[in-house]
Amino acid sequence: MTILVATSGASAPTWRSALASRLPQDAVVTALEPGQDATVDYAVVWHQEPGLLNALPELKAVFSLGAGVDHVLSDPTLPDVPIVRIVSDDLTGRMSEYIVWRVLDHLRQGRAYRDLEAAARWEDLPQPAAHALRVGILGLGELGRDAAAKLRVLGFKVSGWSRTPRRLEGVEVHSGRDGLAACLAQSDIVVVLLPLTHETRGLIDAAFLGGMKRRTPLGGPVLINAGRGGLQKDADILAALESGLLMEASLDVFEEEPLPPTSPLWRHPRCFVTPHIAAASDPDVLSALIADQITRHRAGGALTGLVDRSAGY
Amino acid sequence: MTILVATSGASAPTWRSALASRLPQDAVVTALEPGQDATVDYAVVWHQEPGLLNALPELKAVFSLGAGVDHVLSDPTLPDVPIVRIVSDDLTGRMSEYIVWRVLDHLRQGRAYRDLEAAARWEDLPQPAAHALRVGILGLGELGRDAAAKLRVLGFKVSGWSRTPRRLEGVEVHSGRDGLAACLAQSDIVVVLLPLTHETRGLIDAAFLGGMKRRTPLGGPVLINAGRGGLQKDADILAALESGLLMEASLDVFEEEPLPPTSPLWRHPRCFVTPHIAAASDPDVLSALIADQITRHRAGGALTGLVDRSAGY
Repeated sequence: MTILVATSGASAPTWRSALASRLPQDAVVTALEPGQDATVDYAVVWHQEPGLLNALPELKAVFSLGAGVDHVLSDPTLPDVPIVRIVSDDLTGRMSEYIVWRVLDHLRQGRAYRDLEAAARWEDLPQPAAHALRVGILGLGELGRDAAAKLRVLGFKVSGWSRTPRRLEGVEVHSGRDGLAACLAQSDIVVVLLPLTHETRGLIDAAFLGGMKRRTPLGGPVLINAGRGGLQKDADILAALESGLLMEASLDVFEEEPLPPTSPLWRHPRCFVTPHIAAASDPDVLSALIADQITRHRAGGALTGLVDRSAGY
Repeated sequence: MTILVATSGASAPTWRSALASRLPQDAVVTALEPGQDATVDYAVVWHQEPGLLNALPELKAVFSLGAGVDHVLSDPTLPDVPIVRIVSDDLTGRMSEYIVWRVLDHLRQGRAYRDLEAAARWEDLPQPAAHALRVGILGLGELGRDAAAKLRVLGFKVSGWSRTPRRLEGVEVHSGRDGLAACLAQSDIVVVLLPLTHETRGLIDAAFLGGMKRRTPLGGPVLINAGRGGLQKDADILAALESGLLMEASLDVFEEEPLPPTSPLWRHPRCFVTPHIAAASDPDVLSALIADQITRHRAGGALTGLVDRSAGY
């Protein structure tokens, strides 16, 4: 049979060869020859062309090349087959590296110390300890739960917000709309790891930012978004930085990606911009997971990491 | 009785009032009135004046305002009373914050991404995961063990080096001189948390740096020193950065502190300089620990955190 790799961007050949080496009986292709449509039983996608998957009559499942699936579900003609997201210790670990890195850089005043260093000034700043701060994590899926556990080990108090009520050891969990307000109001640093759905699109707007804690041990509140750019309104974040509502931000995702060179976020001194690299998928590791799932599914086994299409994640 | 606070720097009044509020029956002073010498039973010190403590006939113990005691022991006339170092979860936690912050900033290529950000360039870099790197921790006291445990939680492989053999779960521990060479040769990032003793002074020299791993998943090896400046030769570190033996460094301590504004380390693009702030003591927290020890010791109890003067820490 045929595995179709459909990704935007330049990575398709890398994924094709990583998958081909693990599925030697299959044709792994990045484009279909005429008549090959009916031989595709699995598709591995990242921002696939709308309509592409609907033209595959034998399609059994679609694998997203990432933890998020908004880029898959945005196709209005998406066929009714299982959608599978990546759940991988490698991916989860990388995301937590990014979150802990950014939280600690804000806690330990990296920006201020880099400025002092540039001026060759030996001067210490008042320094709260981790245990004096509360980090609020929005989104308590695989990624949010792992980040919460690691931040707790470093001594931070941790709150969380999820769509539906949850229990999580040592984490003050809020849920629902009222829960969001409570979580924002008590968190010194807010970390966003939500999926992009019709409920969360544009969530980080002026009202959200205005609901963040005013005074924190660091001076003001900090926002870290490593979820999806569609969760935020870039202009509202910029305005909150300008007005002082927001003290600092670390953003890995943006409404438009690549972030246009003209965006003022690039140059705002209290906003750290990274190019959607928080948890870059490792083709070797993730291809092995996908190939295992395909092999198991063909043998009648169940897929893991299935997406709830009505919830959108 | 009288508690003498003897610190270099401007912090003496802060420590005096923090201790006085917890020991209301005592005179807590930063300088002695004539004739007051014989009333001092405890001294709380940081780089005290040589000879000062030897002039106190009733002195029962000396408390160092930090985890290190080299600054106490450097007084050749130091009287034969117990020397106590700070062992505090607050201090230990702060040091681990610093170590994890610096390790993650090197792992996640903070310098390169800040350069890309300054140029408004959207470009991702090859990124190894934490589990592909080994961090070698020199010094496995309270601080080194805590940092090791927290780095392991983040996925790093961890090695360690201590003067005497040790067992530590999940950590490949080396000891002795040969052990140091083995530890350096296998570590992608080397973290120094050693005490400053006659055995460790000047340890981080050209030979040490030349013994570090050549090729690492990040390109070259990284050095993080948050122990004492006397452990290192600033000029040898600079030369290793220039020659490429050392890819990057984070230094919180220096041979001369404050680091002179003329030091090229301030401006070296691959060296991050902080002004000895890795684990700044919190006067409130540490004063409570010292006051508890004094109260307990006067009642006949034992002191904890005693220094082995022959080992030098």
